[in-house]
Amino acid sequence: MVPAPDGRVVATTDLLVEGRHFRLDWSSPVDVGYKAAAQNLADVAAMGARPTALLVGLVAPSTLAVEIAEGFADGLRAGAVAGRALVVGGDVVRGNEVVLSVTALGDLEGQEPVLRSGARPGHVVVVAGRLGWSAAGLRLLQDGVRSGRLVDAHRRPAPPYVLGPELARLGASSLIDVSDGLAADLGHIASASGVRLDLDLDRLRLLGTDGVRDEELWSGGEDHALAGTVPAEFVQQLPPAAVVVGTVRAGRPAVTVDGSPVTGGWDHYRS
Amino acid sequence: MVPAPDGRVVATTDLLVEGRHFRLDWSSPVDVGYKAAAQNLADVAAMGARPTALLVGLVAPSTLAVEIAEGFADGLRAGAVAGRALVVGGDVVRGNEVVLSVTALGDLEGQEPVLRSGARPGHVVVVAGRLGWSAAGLRLLQDGVRSGRLVDAHRRPAPPYVLGPELARLGASSLIDVSDGLAADLGHIASASGVRLDLDLDRLRLLGTDGVRDEELWSGGEDHALAGTVPAEFVQQLPPAAVVVGTVRAGRPAVTVDGSPVTGGWDHYRS
Repeated sequence: MVPAPDGRVVATTDLLVEGRHFRLDWSSPVDVGYKAAAQNLADVAAMGARPTALLVGLVAPSTLAVEIAEGFADGLRAGAVAGRALVVGGDVVRGNEVVLSVTALGDLEGQEPVLRSGARPGHVVVVAGRLGWSAAGLRLLQDGVRSGRLVDAHRRPAPPYVLGPELARLGASSLIDVSDGLAADLGHIASASGVRLDLDLDRLRLLGTDGVRDEELWSGGEDHALAGTVPAEFVQQLPPAAVVVGTVRAGRPAVTVDGSPVTGGWDHYRS
Repeated sequence: MVPAPDGRVVATTDLLVEGRHFRLDWSSPVDVGYKAAAQNLADVAAMGARPTALLVGLVAPSTLAVEIAEGFADGLRAGAVAGRALVVGGDVVRGNEVVLSVTALGDLEGQEPVLRSGARPGHVVVVAGRLGWSAAGLRLLQDGVRSGRLVDAHRRPAPPYVLGPELARLGASSLIDVSDGLAADLGHIASASGVRLDLDLDRLRLLGTDGVRDEELWSGGEDHALAGTVPAEFVQQLPPAAVVVGTVRAGRPAVTVDGSPVTGGWDHYRS
């Protein structure tokens, strides 16, 4: 039983398949569980809601070591706690490949859910969280690197959950979490709102770090930063972690960086 | 966004793997989706809650015909509607075998959730819904029969959802849905409550039908009947669909039928 004091609950669900969404030679089972929790809780936060609960499922071959299943569970619990949520239910069944299913619930705390369709010309584009860290970490893993800050960022995203409800309270006109890449995810806002989003590279770099390539700032996903738009009059009230990275313009839906259209994003690795 | 007027939400999640939990040569994709919805919504009703929403996930090989995926979705929607719930979210990913994940949400409507631990000596055991129909239908499918009332019952369970909240309001001291078999599921209540549940075969037969074997009444699962216990003083208020089938006694946790201990239940078929 999950408290839903608002009287409305937001919910989101994701499936993760071994070899496609995670690799156990690159991430520990605990990391995999942690990340699975994070991506769902970030989705809840991106609706402007406070995460409350996770329900998890595991499809496991009979050959799966029990330590791996326990690692998933430990990671899911730790990832839930990082988002101030609890694991409240689960299911484990046999199957031929490892699949994790995660459903996250959240409470709107009296706010309307923030959609993708409210960005208007003159609003500013804000991002809170990391950009490109996870993608750079994945690149390093592919190159054989097995440790370090960027690799850790790939294994354990740190979405700024509390900023979801806070941006909602501050009047965010659109909000999304960056799962596929900033260009791709802001593209959903641009399309749903019918606007162009012009981003400044120098501002995006504030959310990267050493070792992150410029292109990874907008093409890299899985950091689960929160990205959205806010009416200009609210800019001065933004918390420091919400960085203004661009402007909403009238025009054909598109996302630009320093004036050049950018697209693409995270397509997950193929097994 | 799902209304949760009670301010608390109950939630449950299940995974279904092709070849283990369903077979597409025995059930249509629509039936599979319908049943997946039913089993989760029944679990919500068995907490005494009114089903409100489903979130669904599909792992599908690239070779899966789109009609099959659409059939799952159609069946999930139809099954949700049968439980007066809506499909509010979903995810589709690639994988090597077909897996459905279903999460159901429900609203407690001001009632406390009904647990498994409240059965006390002197309470009566009640069941609402079908017993043994699905098991008999599965037996017929295994024998090559491909149609008929029992086969249909196996393909599309019809849990008495509305009786969950109604039994909660009437003071049910324990409640569960029969997914693994009446003996197995009432066994959970017996264990959690520390009581013996004595059932009468003649009463159980009222919930079977022609073609259902006696043993299937307590060993057959997947009809998702609601089974539980109610203090004797509330018996006269029970709706007609809630059939009194036995009595709660002090004693070592066990379930008996006409005095003989029964165990076992639905172990799903093995791929």
